[in-house]
Amino acid sequence: MDSLNTLIGPDVEALLNERRYDQLRNALIEIEPADLADLIGSLDEASAAVTFRLLPRDLAAATFSHFDTDQQEGLIARLGTERLAVLINEIEPDDRTALLEEMPAEVANRLIALLTPAERSITQTILNYPEETVGRLMTPDYVRVRRDQTIADAMQHIRRYGRDAETVNVIYVVDEHGRLIDDLKIRQFLLGDPEQTVDSIMDENFVALRVSDDREEAVRLIERYDRVALPVVDSRDRLVGIVTADDVADVAEEETTEDIQKMSGMEALDAPYLDSAFGLMVRKRAGWLCVLFVGQMFTATAMGYFEGAIEKAVFLALFLPLIISSGGNAGSQATSLVIRAMALGEVQLRDWWSVLSRELAAGLSLGLLLGAIGLLRVLLWPGGRAVYGDNFVPLGLTLAISTLGVVTFGTFAGSMLPFVLRRLGFDPAAASAPFVATLVDVTGVMIYFTAAAYLLRVG
Amino acid sequence: MDSLNTLIGPDVEALLNERRYDQLRNALIEIEPADLADLIGSLDEASAAVTFRLLPRDLAAATFSHFDTDQQEGLIARLGTERLAVLINEIEPDDRTALLEEMPAEVANRLIALLTPAERSITQTILNYPEETVGRLMTPDYVRVRRDQTIADAMQHIRRYGRDAETVNVIYVVDEHGRLIDDLKIRQFLLGDPEQTVDSIMDENFVALRVSDDREEAVRLIERYDRVALPVVDSRDRLVGIVTADDVADVAEEETTEDIQKMSGMEALDAPYLDSAFGLMVRKRAGWLCVLFVGQMFTATAMGYFEGAIEKAVFLALFLPLIISSGGNAGSQATSLVIRAMALGEVQLRDWWSVLSRELAAGLSLGLLLGAIGLLRVLLWPGGRAVYGDNFVPLGLTLAISTLGVVTFGTFAGSMLPFVLRRLGFDPAAASAPFVATLVDVTGVMIYFTAAAYLLRVG
Repeated sequence: MDSLNTLIGPDVEALLNERRYDQLRNALIEIEPADLADLIGSLDEASAAVTFRLLPRDLAAATFSHFDTDQQEGLIARLGTERLAVLINEIEPDDRTALLEEMPAEVANRLIALLTPAERSITQTILNYPEETVGRLMTPDYVRVRRDQTIADAMQHIRRYGRDAETVNVIYVVDEHGRLIDDLKIRQFLLGDPEQTVDSIMDENFVALRVSDDREEAVRLIERYDRVALPVVDSRDRLVGIVTADDVADVAEEETTEDIQKMSGMEALDAPYLDSAFGLMVRKRAGWLCVLFVGQMFTATAMGYFEGAIEKAVFLALFLPLIISSGGNAGSQATSLVIRAMALGEVQLRDWWSVLSRELAAGLSLGLLLGAIGLLRVLLWPGGRAVYGDNFVPLGLTLAISTLGVVTFGTFAGSMLPFVLRRLGFDPAAASAPFVATLVDVTGVMIYFTAAAYLLRVG
Repeated sequence: MDSLNTLIGPDVEALLNERRYDQLRNALIEIEPADLADLIGSLDEASAAVTFRLLPRDLAAATFSHFDTDQQEGLIARLGTERLAVLINEIEPDDRTALLEEMPAEVANRLIALLTPAERSITQTILNYPEETVGRLMTPDYVRVRRDQTIADAMQHIRRYGRDAETVNVIYVVDEHGRLIDDLKIRQFLLGDPEQTVDSIMDENFVALRVSDDREEAVRLIERYDRVALPVVDSRDRLVGIVTADDVADVAEEETTEDIQKMSGMEALDAPYLDSAFGLMVRKRAGWLCVLFVGQMFTATAMGYFEGAIEKAVFLALFLPLIISSGGNAGSQATSLVIRAMALGEVQLRDWWSVLSRELAAGLSLGLLLGAIGLLRVLLWPGGRAVYGDNFVPLGLTLAISTLGVVTFGTFAGSMLPFVLRRLGFDPAAASAPFVATLVDVTGVMIYFTAAAYLLRVG
């Protein structure tokens, strides 16, 4: 039931060619901003600019925020100063901050110059807060009332100022110094007695963010308290803005994407995959790959100590990748489980002991299972005895025991590394699957050849 | 600024011991439900039950939904039938569905038996929809008005029925057959002329979900259109419920957790890590580990063909883990990037060609970089020439060229596998990093020994 199916690209082109602008405008204003952005984005640049100019200013501003960065830059280049000034002043302050952050510096400066003094002051205040803080995320467009107003007066005030606010679902109560003292749902005003003061419906029970809080705190609180918006206060508890749930949802999505990318052994891209510059993307992947490659060289060093064993029993080398990779796979599961549980707040630092005992038990179970499969592989392989000779049974046992050891160690390392990183103040997501696998590979080489030395007497 | 700091566990215990129940109740009603759940959860079971009984029914219902499954079961066992009946009838229908889904069947049946006929009918209708559909997620507690009502009448209606609704932020307009014809923000009613009909503020522009839609569709639409709630219609376009943004946010979080778990090479747990039953968790991890272990056995088979080469040049085996793991690491990055971009809708099936060309270029760049490091490792190693003798330079070249090949192949396989899986109708997240690594390991063995055969003449 997307409203998009009311109009498609070729229709727009046809109407443009026939210069039926009024008809096109009437069709366009029926469409949701997100769908309009898709529709206009599907046109060539010239038609897109003409179509965009037909939109009323509020719809233009809402639609503009849905374009991707390239499309925004293209439109900015084509719109002309006057149109652009109207547009950039109309965009909601929080969307505007996001836009200015994404644009190249010279475009951003040009846009800031087009702002009215009032809007420029709002935007520069927001841009003064450090990146990744709540201050950067907030909008000053909210409705505030005083506790000594009657509800009827407050409703009058809400009607007057609600038009420009991002939400009237929550109304904020402040004292004479502008300090936040409550947040009330619009429902409470509707259901309250109009003759009574705002005081009568207050519960003085509210949750607020500080302007300097990390934006992840906004994600945590809005999820925890199921709010559509959260108020933001400064260091003196004065209300300075609100953060809305839709912006917070975008932050949560970005943070999760960053986590997933770090968990796969790279730096976060900070841009949609297809939009990120190729050189930058390669650099963000190369860093960890080089670290892991150098780390993995220790497997060669470790194996160097066992070169004699390999010379005596070359078949040992054949099973090495099998053994060490099983530890890496088990470690990958454990680290991802723990990192995600930490990100969701299901697991805290103090839970390390429950996680450890759980994971050691899981590692031993999984190791026994895989070890048994490894043992069967050797014992039941057609012609196995012919190939491996006298070493037939000891080889099977070496595989089984070293698989058990490597899987248990992998699970242990994978589950504990996120705790260690977090304890040391690093991002637990850096305990990526490839990082754990590399750690386990080096250890796996030693476990495997040590087991072989005892069981096959090739040490 | 969590309201939790108004009261802590020991305070509650003290008040309980002194039987100062009124004072305790007055303190409790100041606290947010999410914080109350934490506070009561920190008490022993008996104190928790007593404290919980002190809460007014609406706060009790809101708090109950924040407990984890074990705590809910514990309270249900201790509350007594009468209290339990009040509680279960008070809980919002959408939270109630979630609760009944999580409880063991006998507890769920006992709870359903306690529902009033009206509430039971609502709940059974919802439970009749298949799992993972929008029908399971919705609540019937919304406010609907008719287009021919005056705005003043509509506001009267909203005041009367708004108390029990999940939200009054959006008001739904239906025709005489109950079919949805518009959704309006409460702001539009507040700002409209009370004498005019609802018709005057309608734009007939709305987005709705179908009751049979997959719940992921709710996530997609609510994010796309930045709504606080979406209406749900049946096959005859009749309004049957709404889905609220906070429930959708929970779904989005769950779906992402499932993706992350699949991407790490296991089945999704479907429960918080520390709450999931140990046996089930091990089984969900064991499946893929066994598949990967068996798949990895092909590395042993592949190496079997090159046993002669290893016998002639044992040092070849030393570098094998280094080479093949670099392919796995590169593949892990590529597959995670593509799976996440697909989940966010940034990459579609039709983008496979752009992704392929981008990733081949990235793979070649990264492979050249790591290959160069590998070459330097051999050429610059102290005493390297003494160890590797005549094979000094050819060994370096073998490492460099096979690293290039393996990294390029890993990047290629990692980026294309999600497309193949999705094209075949499978979940792209099954292209997990361990799966890609296993695929690349087998190929890596062949690339490495083939390069060695040509460059070192040991084939």
